[in-house]
Amino acid sequence: MATGEFDLIGQYFTNKSVSRNDVIAGIGDDCAILSVPTGKQLVVTTDTMVSGIHFLADANPTDVAHKLVAVNISDIAAMGGQPAWASLALTLPNYDSAWLSAFSDSLHQQLHRYGVSLIGGDTTKGNMTLTLTLQGFIDQGKALQRQGAEASDLIYCSGTIGDAAAGLKLLIDANNPDNGLSGNTNEAALTDTDEDFLIARHQRPTARVSTGKALVGIANSCIDLSDGLASDLQHILKASSRVSGVTLSANIELSALPLSSALQTYVSNTLWPQYALAGGDDYELLFTVSPKNKAQLEKVMAEHDLPYTHIGEIVSAGQSEQINYFNDNQLTSLALQGWDHFQ
Amino acid sequence: MATGEFDLIGQYFTNKSVSRNDVIAGIGDDCAILSVPTGKQLVVTTDTMVSGIHFLADANPTDVAHKLVAVNISDIAAMGGQPAWASLALTLPNYDSAWLSAFSDSLHQQLHRYGVSLIGGDTTKGNMTLTLTLQGFIDQGKALQRQGAEASDLIYCSGTIGDAAAGLKLLIDANNPDNGLSGNTNEAALTDTDEDFLIARHQRPTARVSTGKALVGIANSCIDLSDGLASDLQHILKASSRVSGVTLSANIELSALPLSSALQTYVSNTLWPQYALAGGDDYELLFTVSPKNKAQLEKVMAEHDLPYTHIGEIVSAGQSEQINYFNDNQLTSLALQGWDHFQ
Repeated sequence: MATGEFDLIGQYFTNKSVSRNDVIAGIGDDCAILSVPTGKQLVVTTDTMVSGIHFLADANPTDVAHKLVAVNISDIAAMGGQPAWASLALTLPNYDSAWLSAFSDSLHQQLHRYGVSLIGGDTTKGNMTLTLTLQGFIDQGKALQRQGAEASDLIYCSGTIGDAAAGLKLLIDANNPDNGLSGNTNEAALTDTDEDFLIARHQRPTARVSTGKALVGIANSCIDLSDGLASDLQHILKASSRVSGVTLSANIELSALPLSSALQTYVSNTLWPQYALAGGDDYELLFTVSPKNKAQLEKVMAEHDLPYTHIGEIVSAGQSEQINYFNDNQLTSLALQGWDHFQ
Repeated sequence: MATGEFDLIGQYFTNKSVSRNDVIAGIGDDCAILSVPTGKQLVVTTDTMVSGIHFLADANPTDVAHKLVAVNISDIAAMGGQPAWASLALTLPNYDSAWLSAFSDSLHQQLHRYGVSLIGGDTTKGNMTLTLTLQGFIDQGKALQRQGAEASDLIYCSGTIGDAAAGLKLLIDANNPDNGLSGNTNEAALTDTDEDFLIARHQRPTARVSTGKALVGIANSCIDLSDGLASDLQHILKASSRVSGVTLSANIELSALPLSSALQTYVSNTLWPQYALAGGDDYELLFTVSPKNKAQLEKVMAEHDLPYTHIGEIVSAGQSEQINYFNDNQLTSLALQGWDHFQ
């Protein structure tokens, strides 16, 4: 129902797509026509980002497109899938060619990076709202799910965690130097490289596609870290308890959490569990592996040079699913706050 | 990133879905896991509806959900596909349980009607923006496309056209009795049944899934009527000309256009081409068939009791694609307006 100049939006998204043999017809008809390889199942995810909620209203369109792709690909990665096709629903308040040009260039660059074809979508007028639906492939019956964790599974996460929350705090402090939050962090101690690293972790995350694929057939459960480890681990515990009929809890060793040197420089050590466990937006993978698969895990992760860290164990204990935190093997209590006070 | 009450939105959309064997895992993990039947290709479409643009801000949520499903299913129908799975991205300004309850009930009812499973989505806070991504199946290589029309093809459309535009005008006149538009139409002549019919055609359209499926292997091209026949037929002409390398035009016989009795009662006969050709939102199918398939078309449409009408021919003529309108076989000129003056 768009008219006039608005119809031109489509031009930014056609004929720049990754060419794939399984896309029989892409943008330009009522539907895309797609071919799923024999023996593969589809994994499908949808994420929406709203201006002023998920990103600042004046955010760089290059970063917005980067993150929109990454958060969706990350869901495919968490299933162990290979990303393939994307549909974009773009709602924009006006026709802004500079914004569209930067956004679409970045979108295509990110889709190319993951080998994903843009197969269709819709452009409409309204408050800026971006929805991406991503589809990927997984060998039949091999998808990693949240619900497969078992008692005595080892708990791991990929990469480092807490960086994205630190990057967000740096951006917020820069916009509001007098917000009273700067006492807990030490921006002055950061090198420019460290500061750029933390901000990039917030604005331009990388989805762990290779890690997810490596875990297929090895991990019992997997989820991507979007809300923060404490919250996302609960999803694994609840889903796995429901399926197994056994109440599962987790023991997490705080001293084992993988923290970047930049985060350790920036944040006081009393505060780093807050960043690492409740920060969110890291898009690392959290997964559990049976002890019998430990050697196989170590082999495949070494082969592909993928960073990961053992941080705890699944246990069957308690009346309800809970996470027990240990500090050098001593049970400790931890009051985690959400990040609402930042907004 | 939603918190608190907003997290509850999901409850309106889980455990009410159509159960399908090809949905290995639906809502509740990072991705849905889906199985595509052997020999089938996927057809995928995305449509967004924005409050205040595609529907009135105070529109009935039952109607909004009905239309959101229908316009998406209609795209699958236009390919000859069988709808299967839907992903919903729901952006809402606040948590309104009455609205959510009515919207989700209607959404599920419509998805059940077409046998579609809701497999996932996202709920976010922002101006009301609804995006549905629909997936369906089509036998390999059998999808109907816009680009297959050939010279001498017969042009048909399903059902009746122009009704949705008349229904919209009735609603607009009811909201603004003094808008100066009522002189061209005769609401007083309509029975309540006719008036309800026209409004329902605008608010609660039906997607022509059976018609699309019946046309597979028979029609050379197909599109659904969302923008209006004049505009959508141009899409067929342009796509088919580009693919065939022959400039294709269309001859349309105005006296043959299928008009409901309600529309003919409501609108003066000087104005009905405006409604039928430029009205849009009818979600009927417009398709072309080679004369050699005419008997087969008539047989299958009769077998399934599907309404359709022969309205013209494809011709190879002219420097650029154009639509020539005839009135009782006399070439006539027609100045069609868009519907912007209604808004």
